[in-house]
Amino acid sequence: MELTHFDEQGNARMVDVGEKAETQREAVAVGRIQMNEETYQAVQQGSMSKGDVLGVARIAGITGAKKTSDLIPLTHNINLTKVTLDFKLYPMTREIEASCTARTFGRTGVEMEAITGVSIALLTIYDMCKALDKGMEIGQIYLQKKTGGKSGDVYNRRQVRKED
Amino acid sequence: MELTHFDEQGNARMVDVGEKAETQREAVAVGRIQMNEETYQAVQQGSMSKGDVLGVARIAGITGAKKTSDLIPLTHNINLTKVTLDFKLYPMTREIEASCTARTFGRTGVEMEAITGVSIALLTIYDMCKALDKGMEIGQIYLQKKTGGKSGDVYNRRQVRKED
Amino acid sequence: MELTHFDEQGNARMVDVGEKAETQREAVAVGRIQMNEETYQAVQQGSMSKGDVLGVARIAGITGAKKTSDLIPLTHNINLTKVTLDFKLYPMTREIEASCTARTFGRTGVEMEAITGVSIALLTIYDMCKALDKGMEIGQIYLQKKTGGKSGDVYNRRQVRKED
Amino acid sequence: MELTHFDEQGNARMVDVGEKAETQREAVAVGRIQMNEETYQAVQQGSMSKGDVLGVARIAGITGAKKTSDLIPLTHNINLTKVTLDFKLYPMTREIEASCTARTFGRTGVEMEAITGVSIALLTIYDMCKALDKGMEIGQIYLQKKTGGKSGDVYNRRQVRKED
Amino acid sequence: MELTHFDEQGNARMVDVGEKAETQREAVAVGRIQMNEETYQAVQQGSMSKGDVLGVARIAGITGAKKTSDLIPLTHNINLTKVTLDFKLYPMTREIEASCTARTFGRTGVEMEAITGVSIALLTIYDMCKALDKGMEIGQIYLQKKTGGKSGDVYNRRQVRKED
Amino acid sequence: MELTHFDEQGNARMVDVGEKAETQREAVAVGRIQMNEETYQAVQQGSMSKGDVLGVARIAGITGAKKTSDLIPLTHNINLTKVTLDFKLYPMTREIEASCTARTFGRTGVEMEAITGVSIALLTIYDMCKALDKGMEIGQIYLQKKTGGKSGDVYNRRQVRKED
Repeated sequence: MELTHFDEQGNARMVDVGEKAETQREAVAVGRIQMNEETYQAVQQGSMSKGDVLGVARIAGITGAKKTSDLIPLTHNINLTKVTLDFKLYPMTREIEASCTARTFGRTGVEMEAITGVSIALLTIYDMCKALDKGMEIGQIYLQKKTGGKSGDVYNRRQVRKED
Repeated sequence: MELTHFDEQGNARMVDVGEKAETQREAVAVGRIQMNEETYQAVQQGSMSKGDVLGVARIAGITGAKKTSDLIPLTHNINLTKVTLDFKLYPMTREIEASCTARTFGRTGVEMEAITGVSIALLTIYDMCKALDKGMEIGQIYLQKKTGGKSGDVYNRRQVRKED
Repeated sequence: MELTHFDEQGNARMVDVGEKAETQREAVAVGRIQMNEETYQAVQQGSMSKGDVLGVARIAGITGAKKTSDLIPLTHNINLTKVTLDFKLYPMTREIEASCTARTFGRTGVEMEAITGVSIALLTIYDMCKALDKGMEIGQIYLQKKTGGKSGDVYNRRQVRKED
Repeated sequence: MELTHFDEQGNARMVDVGEKAETQREAVAVGRIQMNEETYQAVQQGSMSKGDVLGVARIAGITGAKKTSDLIPLTHNINLTKVTLDFKLYPMTREIEASCTARTFGRTGVEMEAITGVSIALLTIYDMCKALDKGMEIGQIYLQKKTGGKSGDVYNRRQVRKED
Repeated sequence: MELTHFDEQGNARMVDVGEKAETQREAVAVGRIQMNEETYQAVQQGSMSKGDVLGVARIAGITGAKKTSDLIPLTHNINLTKVTLDFKLYPMTREIEASCTARTFGRTGVEMEAITGVSIALLTIYDMCKALDKGMEIGQIYLQKKTGGKSGDVYNRRQVRKED
Repeated sequence: MELTHFDEQGNARMVDVGEKAETQREAVAVGRIQMNEETYQAVQQGSMSKGDVLGVARIAGITGAKKTSDLIPLTHNINLTKVTLDFKLYPMTREIEASCTARTFGRTGVEMEAITGVSIALLTIYDMCKALDKGMEIGQIYLQKKTGGKSGDVYNRRQVRKED
């Protein structure tokens, strides 16, 4: 097996998807940011009343998903037909989980769009909270689901942790 | 304590840094991507001979750090005087660690540039390896060091894991 | 009736257009900028000989229409098949009217592309004239026509003012 | 008097600001969007509970202000030290007024950043409401205040309308 | 014969391609950069071991090709299905030739994408070598091949120079 | 002598300019495009009356110079204080020469901004003329002048050709 983004000489390339069929393709990616109690409370309360951190992060993530081909060198520029971003709050572990769903009707998958949307959303939360907590950590970013396309559907399940 | 990116009415804003002093500021952020054995081998060998995944990711990360103010809504657009990206390989855990150092001589810190550089580099590795491994995970992204500026220097140390 | 850019929980989203039919879609938007007599004369003369303000504004507007999905968070990134920008001069009221026509063959309308093209063109005129007139006003920006797509054609007619 | 963005041959240029002094500069621009009653109610209610149109428009406007030099051809790329966006609701006329304040410590003014921020915010409101009202109008966009720099401060006052 | 990017009044426009057929389209463009012996050696050795100038230039060129519609005002924004960039070294003349192949399945050609990819790759080589050689020259940039589309295939052959 | 854009391990980096002095820096770059007689005539006549190819190319080049740090991976993002673009027509050889002057007050030179401005202007001419001439060639792009900064001024003179 080989890395498809390189030719036989080892040179990076944008792979040819011109012969692939146009189909409905969807991807869902998730990721988390963990913060201290005080910051977690500020975000949680903000999302209910004033200072809507997650509302800003949602817009940044959706916009970020649209920028994927500008950020990741060998990705194809494609037309997304849908992008949504949701957040779940985990008070026990003071984590916020971002989940991004991307869709296209096209010749190549949208995993990178979903995972980029998640990453930019989490970075935006980080930015808005960094004055309160300089020790936050972003992690557990992975592809949860991928459907459409020749290579078959993919479902990644992570073990549910007790505290969730 | 409050989220500084919101005014008293809870409206998001780009905070005023016009009165802050221009100083040398530096930030270092790190993050990791974990993959299966086969993919890890492909990346490791590529970085020595053909198919230089990390070389591509380094360029994407440096370019990404320069795009920070376009990606993260409330960040200031600043002039970076230096950006570097390094990678460390952890064969025991099949992880690649990206480390990004950003510098400016300016009125606001460069944490977001360093952490964005790390994130885009890791996403680029993900993109180039996703044909081989659909279960990779990006994580442990945090600020390691931040110097310069009024709020004082910051050093975050994570426990060194045995396998490292 | 509801704002379609929000889900049931009130969270912003890029709406799903994946099921919509691909059709020819066109939109025309207009807008005006009003300036003092001296500035109006400078623009009018420039467009005939030296200092072609409207030529620069036309290029900025066409380029701006192509950037719509990067500027307006919840718009879809689409492929425009045509963009034109025209100007009309109204000496009685010292106004310049910009009119932008955008077309696509796709799943969603191009109103935002047309209206963004108009806005960027007017802002560019503002920029080039602001040394002469600091009291200019941009206004009367609206969608004049929209055809193609399921929701039916739209024609907005404003009352013709005497001085036009 | 002449258009400064053209040389003696009438060729467009980015004017030289290298000799100008670095000073604190601020600009405030405003603009409005008018809509039908139903849509106005949806926006007003959304900004209190679900479907925060103005929250999304605020982020788009702040981000848009940072993109000014990419949108308006002859503007200088500058480092903004502050950007804020506020909204006022006028129920009598079913208008929403956006007001953008931009600041820099630099060699050239920030009028275009303020007025671009206002325009992008209003376009974003338009986008989110266009399913409800296809006859909205954007207008009354002008520079309200400009301070700092050699050419002197500018204050534009529009007649207060009765219904305001 | 006329310049198609202008209407009858001489106003620039993005031409309408909405009625053109969707077909497989490909373009190949080439270009060269010439440098002094020392710099040429540094690039040549780098591409084998340390300091991979051409690897960086390849990524910049591929990314640049994707930005074409943002750089060249009247081009259509299209979805590329493939982009590759290759380099050939000419020791006799101390030249590096970049060759870019772009493909799309769409309504308009990809010449500009190929030629922009070549140009950005050569500019990147220039940037990385300019500390060693301030007299480099970029040239011989032309379209080598263009297939697909109604206007027929194009093949440009330049005389092979002896030293090649 | 070494390529400064790589560290001791051969890894690409954005070099540190934080310790360099802020000075006035200027660069002038030139380049040419050669075309067939018919196309040359169309451009020459257009620049006098209808169809102003060079006017569009000038705007694209100035805008392109501002995008340099987004296009060329290891360049610093800097604030340009001036950009101008001029054209000279050479009827004997059917060439158009673009000349771009860039200035900054900063810590690093503006060669890349000047040479990128020239390249984008020439690519824009190519785009607008390619329907008439599919054999055009872009070339002779080099740095003509560079002043300011520690490394000393640079002047590159090419032999004046008879036909010029």
